[in-house]
Amino acid sequence: MTTASGGEDALTALTSLVRDDLEACNRLIVERMQSPVALIPQLAAHIVAAGGKRLRPLLTLAAARLCGYRGQRHVALAACVEFIHTATLLHDDVVDESALRRGQASANALFGNKPSVLVGDFLFSRAFEVMVQDGSLRVLAILSAASATISEGEVLQLVTQNDTTTTEAQYLQVIEGKTAALFAAATRIGAVVADRPEAEEEALDAYGRNLGIAFQLVDDALDYAAEQERLGKTVGDDFREGKITLPILLAFERGTEAERTFWRRTLEERDQRPEDLAEAQRLIEVHDALRDTVARARHYGDAALAALGGFPEGPERQALADIVEFCIARAR
Amino acid sequence: MTTASGGEDALTALTSLVRDDLEACNRLIVERMQSPVALIPQLAAHIVAAGGKRLRPLLTLAAARLCGYRGQRHVALAACVEFIHTATLLHDDVVDESALRRGQASANALFGNKPSVLVGDFLFSRAFEVMVQDGSLRVLAILSAASATISEGEVLQLVTQNDTTTTEAQYLQVIEGKTAALFAAATRIGAVVADRPEAEEEALDAYGRNLGIAFQLVDDALDYAAEQERLGKTVGDDFREGKITLPILLAFERGTEAERTFWRRTLEERDQRPEDLAEAQRLIEVHDALRDTVARARHYGDAALAALGGFPEGPERQALADIVEFCIARAR
Repeated sequence: MTTASGGEDALTALTSLVRDDLEACNRLIVERMQSPVALIPQLAAHIVAAGGKRLRPLLTLAAARLCGYRGQRHVALAACVEFIHTATLLHDDVVDESALRRGQASANALFGNKPSVLVGDFLFSRAFEVMVQDGSLRVLAILSAASATISEGEVLQLVTQNDTTTTEAQYLQVIEGKTAALFAAATRIGAVVADRPEAEEEALDAYGRNLGIAFQLVDDALDYAAEQERLGKTVGDDFREGKITLPILLAFERGTEAERTFWRRTLEERDQRPEDLAEAQRLIEVHDALRDTVARARHYGDAALAALGGFPEGPERQALADIVEFCIARAR
Repeated sequence: MTTASGGEDALTALTSLVRDDLEACNRLIVERMQSPVALIPQLAAHIVAAGGKRLRPLLTLAAARLCGYRGQRHVALAACVEFIHTATLLHDDVVDESALRRGQASANALFGNKPSVLVGDFLFSRAFEVMVQDGSLRVLAILSAASATISEGEVLQLVTQNDTTTTEAQYLQVIEGKTAALFAAATRIGAVVADRPEAEEEALDAYGRNLGIAFQLVDDALDYAAEQERLGKTVGDDFREGKITLPILLAFERGTEAERTFWRRTLEERDQRPEDLAEAQRLIEVHDALRDTVARARHYGDAALAALGGFPEGPERQALADIVEFCIARAR
């Protein structure tokens, strides 16, 4: 299967392909985040309506069309996927005290911890209400299980934070939970609404899961990328928080004893000096840790592409294939 | 309808009446809060298995039996109700930085904010997984709507915090959301599993909702009760946080201009001195605000009792009637 050259182009192409569905989904998102308690839509608008790229709902919309679905149920379910994603972002903001999200001041920084937790809860509950109205127990099973898995991944991330004895297997478990589980559910439910056989559900699950892992691996690489710094984007958030990601794991594994002492001081003992991020980036570069993280992402990206093999050729399959390249090309 | 004299006796009687169901429910709670991520059951055990009185699941169990239900589905659904309740406690701990919960150090104080948010999310997701396994879209609709309403109530509580212009109507909306919605759902689903007509669902909803309002009114009175202080229990949490509850609303409404200045300084400007709680208690006493809060609770309790009128007499109806007295008698 070939992929288009473009990165951003692929996202644009996917967005164009399902434009009407996406617009309906966006309308539904705004409609269903309303509440008589005004702070809820105010805060939710800040994050859910702030015009993220809507990657996850796009995946649901395209997966349903790939499966030949001709109805409109996928629109509401794509909105549910985005609500669940938004709820995790809001709760993640609380958790990580991150100052920036999607280039804007985070909801948490603007509104405080309390509303972020509670509005996240509201969006999460609302997602389940919308799913119940759709009426598919199968969809409810997939998205409730994914939600539980997301929390498990997030908790495991906390447990491994600041711990340089974390294994690659544990790291993979974290990103499979916190990121890939929702990608897998988002694409799988495309097959469910189209009433396709279990094998197609599984294939779309595999596509979404591998894509999600690739996406997160690249995200974790970008957090140390010098190119990002040149573009004026924030780097070093993970380092400051002591998150154990693959670039760190590879550099640590390949490092000298002196280098490991550096990682232990900065990540485990949380004793960081202003010059330490640059040193971390240098060590990651010396040991080719970013290159190899992206290579790993490409490996999962290939698995995602392979999972599309059984579906009919056409614009949907091409767009979903190209989005794999989009996720990986961000690292260039 | 008569009620037994006892307070605690009523809880004991209700617990005895559904003992086998409750034990099955407790086993299921422990079983379904497990996760390969060890911190999740560790933290969850601290709060969910800490032996709260299990009032909400008891209501589900007894309501189902009151409706003549003879199966076992209500056991899993009672566990869902407790999971949702526990998730809100965990998120409320984060929110209010409360130091004590059920007489133990709160999960938040012991484990930190981050795990409390995420384990709350896990329990919430798990509750929906268990409901999906039960397979009733009606139950899912009731509990997802209740969950959204809980968040709305909690957000409204934040919005009205430290605001002495809060109205009684807003206060009622807060407690209907944060407390009564889950009581109503807990009892309503008893009628659903028993496949009873809509009118019985409505009656059990009215019972639970009015009971929940009464319960919260009494809770809000207890936070200023001198008797509680003599028993060594914490009072004044609401005052310190600037929560606008009925005792405050009544005392403010009935107060002199000098007294209102006191309330505005302590609650709105958050300028509190060590002697201010005693002064708040004195003003509440002077204006009979606790007495009238409990009288209001009794009014809602009577409505709860009335809602039971159409159900067959017998031990279940008696136990549910007596629990109204239990909720109110705590204020003595």
